Amino acid sequence: MPEENHPRFDPIGVFDSGIGGLTVVAALQELLPSETIFYIGDTARVPYGGKSRKTVERYSIEIGGLLLAEQAKILVVACNTASALAVPRMKDIFKVPVQGVVSPGAAAAVKATKNKRIGVIGTRATIASGAYEHAITTLDQESLVCSEACPLLVPLIEEGMFDDPVTDQMLGRYLAPLLDQGIDTLVLGCTHYPLLRDAIGRAAGPGVTLVDSARNCALAVRELLASHGIAAPQERLGRLHVALTDSTEGFLRTAEKALDLEIGDVELRAVQIGE
Amino acid sequence: MPEENHPRFDPIGVFDSGIGGLTVVAALQELLPSETIFYIGDTARVPYGGKSRKTVERYSIEIGGLLLAEQAKILVVACNTASALAVPRMKDIFKVPVQGVVSPGAAAAVKATKNKRIGVIGTRATIASGAYEHAITTLDQESLVCSEACPLLVPLIEEGMFDDPVTDQMLGRYLAPLLDQGIDTLVLGCTHYPLLRDAIGRAAGPGVTLVDSARNCALAVRELLASHGIAAPQERLGRLHVALTDSTEGFLRTAEKALDLEIGDVELRAVQIGE
Repeated sequence: MPEENHPRFDPIGVFDSGIGGLTVVAALQELLPSETIFYIGDTARVPYGGKSRKTVERYSIEIGGLLLAEQAKILVVACNTASALAVPRMKDIFKVPVQGVVSPGAAAAVKATKNKRIGVIGTRATIASGAYEHAITTLDQESLVCSEACPLLVPLIEEGMFDDPVTDQMLGRYLAPLLDQGIDTLVLGCTHYPLLRDAIGRAAGPGVTLVDSARNCALAVRELLASHGIAAPQERLGRLHVALTDSTEGFLRTAEKALDLEIGDVELRAVQIGE
Repeated sequence: MPEENHPRFDPIGVFDSGIGGLTVVAALQELLPSETIFYIGDTARVPYGGKSRKTVERYSIEIGGLLLAEQAKILVVACNTASALAVPRMKDIFKVPVQGVVSPGAAAAVKATKNKRIGVIGTRATIASGAYEHAITTLDQESLVCSEACPLLVPLIEEGMFDDPVTDQMLGRYLAPLLDQGIDTLVLGCTHYPLLRDAIGRAAGPGVTLVDSARNCALAVRELLASHGIAAPQERLGRLHVALTDSTEGFLRTAEKALDLEIGDVELRAVQIGE
């Protein structure tokens, strides 16, 4: 096949329920500057975190199809809820590799913990799925996993309340039961949460290692690209395309600034919920 | 036509982006106990409050169609965002009467104010639409409207944090600019907010009259039913049917308890976003 048609020139497809997945984009860009990234945020139906498995599966498969239409060579599910609920079905359906954020985060947590007490925070749907618990105990049966749903953190982050007494108060409440269990490692099980890393670190205290799913997902993507022989040529400089399913940009510009990303014009993609 | 086929035996169709519209259901039941109500909450795509006009119109028209399939004799848009953004298009499209929550709330506010300084709180989309401002100043050019988007209130309410220092803190921040303007009347421009009436009353102080869109919408529906000759026979006792577009019930049971509603089994309705 002609050189320029080789899949290694195709983009990495990244999707999230909204804007939070841009933390994964930032990690991918840092690690893989040669890769072009096509990001779709399903802002017309955000958030996924309180919705059912069936609905999250339908949405994820639909957005996956939109990314394949953009020639994505790999699908990165940069949303913990979709990773926890929809990745198995996506792997069945799509021919390209599918990488979620749960398994890399679980592996990093098992590696980081010394006392085998791991805390996980995320949306209601992610925590209720038990996906992190399953992934962690599969890797290490002796690990004890304590989870806590933190439904207010995403709205607080989307309001840009990164450094705010209200956010600190809510973090104090959410983390108290985990700290009572003596965790030494805390998985940030939602792609929004790295934006709140400082406040979470303050609330958790210096004895707790924070595991960021964005960074670990980017590492897993690098491995997958290498093992499939589809990594972009290193001399190339990748670009970033961002598309949303609703014209309201929400906190896109807040995230762009906080993550030091360069996002130009945002495209619009229509979604249809198939039966 | 045979008696039982007369539209007065048909249900009132009520829709909301999620669960909040049940405050309108409670007000309708109190005022119109003979009416059967069919409620659809679009929990698969909740919330509408941060989305664009075009998307909110598409969703509203789709849910309106589902209610007409249930023989709804009138459509009640029990969601301020959809009322502000989609009611004009819905009135063009549907043959049955369409009643939103904005115009009754605006009329009640104009009636209640003495100093002609009216505050409005709501979601980002409702406030950005300027719908209350437009409705109020159309009724009374001399009224000054001060609006404030309160994006965190819906998540706080959905967490059942009705009586909580965090909620009080956020209310204090949101209401401060309105109180600085000397408002004597405050429109609760989101159907979730009546659940937070006590805390809002405390934050606003005794000199401010709260205008509840739910109650005023129910009064407007009663008038519409009478003027169209489609009110249910008074001797009948109406029932309540609730359907959601996602199987996750979210804070349905919290609202059921807080509003003293009797909700039995919840049905599921699939939604499709048409082009």
